[in-house]
Amino acid sequence: MADIYMDNAAGTRLLEEVYEEMLTFFTTEFGNPSSIHKAGTKPKEAVESARERVADLIGAQPKEIYFTSCGSESNNFAIKGTAWAGVEKGRHIVVSEIDHHSVLYSARALKRLGWEVSTVSADESGFVDPDEVYAVLRDNTVVVSITHASNEIGTIEPIKEIAARLKEKGIPFHTDAIQTAGVIHVNVDDLSVDMLSLSANSFYGPKGAAALYIREGIRVFSLIDGGIQERGRRAGTENVPVIVGLGKAAEIAMRDMDSRITATTELRDKLMSGLETAIPKLQVNGDRLRRLPGNVHVSIEAVEGESMIFSLSGKGIFAASGSSCADKALKSSHVLKAIGCDPALANSSLLFSLGFDNTEAEVDRVIEVLPPIVENLRSMSPLWDG
Amino acid sequence: MADIYMDNAAGTRLLEEVYEEMLTFFTTEFGNPSSIHKAGTKPKEAVESARERVADLIGAQPKEIYFTSCGSESNNFAIKGTAWAGVEKGRHIVVSEIDHHSVLYSARALKRLGWEVSTVSADESGFVDPDEVYAVLRDNTVVVSITHASNEIGTIEPIKEIAARLKEKGIPFHTDAIQTAGVIHVNVDDLSVDMLSLSANSFYGPKGAAALYIREGIRVFSLIDGGIQERGRRAGTENVPVIVGLGKAAEIAMRDMDSRITATTELRDKLMSGLETAIPKLQVNGDRLRRLPGNVHVSIEAVEGESMIFSLSGKGIFAASGSSCADKALKSSHVLKAIGCDPALANSSLLFSLGFDNTEAEVDRVIEVLPPIVENLRSMSPLWDG
Repeated sequence: MADIYMDNAAGTRLLEEVYEEMLTFFTTEFGNPSSIHKAGTKPKEAVESARERVADLIGAQPKEIYFTSCGSESNNFAIKGTAWAGVEKGRHIVVSEIDHHSVLYSARALKRLGWEVSTVSADESGFVDPDEVYAVLRDNTVVVSITHASNEIGTIEPIKEIAARLKEKGIPFHTDAIQTAGVIHVNVDDLSVDMLSLSANSFYGPKGAAALYIREGIRVFSLIDGGIQERGRRAGTENVPVIVGLGKAAEIAMRDMDSRITATTELRDKLMSGLETAIPKLQVNGDRLRRLPGNVHVSIEAVEGESMIFSLSGKGIFAASGSSCADKALKSSHVLKAIGCDPALANSSLLFSLGFDNTEAEVDRVIEVLPPIVENLRSMSPLWDG
Repeated sequence: MADIYMDNAAGTRLLEEVYEEMLTFFTTEFGNPSSIHKAGTKPKEAVESARERVADLIGAQPKEIYFTSCGSESNNFAIKGTAWAGVEKGRHIVVSEIDHHSVLYSARALKRLGWEVSTVSADESGFVDPDEVYAVLRDNTVVVSITHASNEIGTIEPIKEIAARLKEKGIPFHTDAIQTAGVIHVNVDDLSVDMLSLSANSFYGPKGAAALYIREGIRVFSLIDGGIQERGRRAGTENVPVIVGLGKAAEIAMRDMDSRITATTELRDKLMSGLETAIPKLQVNGDRLRRLPGNVHVSIEAVEGESMIFSLSGKGIFAASGSSCADKALKSSHVLKAIGCDPALANSSLLFSLGFDNTEAEVDRVIEVLPPIVENLRSMSPLWDG
C-alpha cells in the first residue's frame, strides 16, 4: 500500500491543478510585478487575480487582502501591527490560551516591550467563553485575537459571539483562521471580524503563501516595512508563483468545499469511532460536534505520542502528536494543558488530520495497524497496568 | 529579436538548473520539515543542505543562517530585532541616506515608537564616510545598518572600514547585501559584519527566498514569533522549494562567480561608454570603479525616466527608472537626492541592471535603440534647448 498521509494540519499536498498554474511564473513570466515595463504586466495581473480569488473565498474586498509569506507572519502582522498602531489608545491586548504560538509569542514579544497581555482560558472542550473575553476588556485594549479553530484539537470557536461583545467596545478583532479558511465556510462579515489570517498550505496550495485580511478602515502598522508592495503595508517583492497558487487553491476550495467537508467529516467520524472501539483507554480531545472536519485528536493512556508516530511512520502512516511548530523536547502541548488534559495523557496524544483526498481504505488501514502498535508499546510501558 | 531583460536589480530570471532541483519539493516531497515522521525527512535534509550552501557563499557557519521570505524581511528582522533586543542599552540606531526603503522605513517605524535615528549622508558618488558613522555613535546606539551596495546607483560601500570603526564600540553592524551576495565576493569575516541580508532573486534563484546571517552571539529578537523553526528565531513552516532554490542558486553563484563578474563588467562598461558616446547631456551616476558589475545608472537631461522605460518596453527592452520598490507617483529617488542629484535629472534617470546572461548583441541593440528614443522625447520636451 502507498504511504498514507494524515498530517494535513502540518501542511497539505499541492494539487496538480494548482501547481500547473504556478509553473509559468517560475519560468517565462519571472518579472517583478512592480516593474512598469512589459515583463511586469502578467505577474502583476496574476497577483491581482489571486487577490480577487482569495477575497471571494472569505467574502472580502480584494483591497482588504494583504499577501504574506506564511500564517505565522499573518498572525504577527495582525497582532503587533494593531498594537503598534494603537499606542495612543493604550497598550493592552487579549489572546486565548489555545491560540497558536505565533499568536501567543507575538503577545509575549509585545509584553517584553511594555504591553500588557490578558490571556483568556478555554474550557475542557477547548471553547473560549465570550463573556470571559468581554470581562477582561479595558479602556486601553487595542486588539483581541482568538483562533477560529485550534490546529491541535480542532475545536471551532464561537467567533461570531465574541465579535458581538467586542463590537460595542469598538476594539479590533483578529481571528487566526489558518485551519479553517479554505476548509470550512468562512465569511468575514458573517464572523464579524476585522482581521483574519489564512494560509494556502491548509487547503492544497503551496507553502510560503498566506494572507491577512484587514477590514477597510482598521489601522495596522506594517510588520515588514519598505517598498510600496501591498499598498505599502507589506514590503518585499511579491512571491508571484506561490501567490498564484494561493489564488488557484482558493478558487478550487470554494468550488469543492461542500463535497470536501462531507467526505472528510465521514472519514473523521469513521476513524474516531473505529479507534475508540479498537483501543481501550483512548480519549477523544476537543468538542465532538463543533470540530474541524478532518480532525481526529486522541490521547491513548500509557503510550508516548512520539513512539506511536515513529511506529506508524515505519508502516507508512504519517500523523502527528501535536503542533508541528511546537518544540520537540517532549514539552507538553500548551493547548492540551489549557483544556485541563492530564500531563501524562497530553504526552500520549495523536493527531490525525484528514483531507478530502484520504480514503476509506486508508482509514481502515489505520484502524487495523494502530491497535497492535499500542498493545506492543503498552506491553513495554511501566505506566500500563492493563 | 527576443526581449532583452536588463532589470536584474528588480529580480533575476530563475536558472533551469535551480528550478529542477526545486520541483520535487512541490510534488512528491511536500512534507513539513518539522514533522518527525518520514514525510518530513527529505524536506528537512534539503533545508539543512541549503543552509550549508548559503553559509558557504558568505563564509558563515550554517547555524548563523536564518531563512526569511524576502530581502525586505531580512532587513526588517535585523534592524527591528536588534533594536528590540537592545532596549536595556538604549534606543538609538544608525542608518544611511542611500539605504533601501526596507532599512529606512524600519528605522522610521522604530522612531514612531520612541527610538532615535541618525541617518548618515552619502557623498556625490554615493559613498558613506566611516568617520561620519563613527561621529554619530552614542553610548545608547544598539545597531548600525549600512547597505553594501545601492540597488539604484550601484556604489559599493566601504563596509570593512565602517566595521573597523564600530568594532571598538562593540555595536552590532548589519549590512544589506541583497545586491551583492551571490553577485560579487562577499565574506562576513572579511567584511567584519555581525548581520547580513541576502536574497536569492538577485542571483538567479527564486522569489520568496532570502536569508539573514546573524553572527553567533549577537542578540536579535524575532520579527516573526511563533514556532520553533529556524532555531526559534523565525517562525512559520519553511518554504522548502524556494529554500532549496536559494541553496542551489548559491552553489552555482559561488562556482561561476568570477566568470560572471568578468562577463557582466565588460557588458556594463561597453553599455556605459556606448551610451555616453551616443547621447549628449547624459550623466553617469554612482562611482565608476567601486560599482556593481551589472549596474548602468544614467540621467539623461530633459527626458522623463518613465517615458524612456515605456518606449524601450515597446521595443522589447526592459529596464527601470529607479528602485522597483519605490512609489510610482513620480516621487524622486531618495538615493539620487542623497547624492545631490538635481531633481530634474533624478526624474530623468535610467537603470540598466545587467546579468551574466545578457549578451554583447543585446548591449549593441540598446545603444542603437535608445538614442533615437531620447531624441524623439527631447524634441517634444519644453525642457530641452538642444
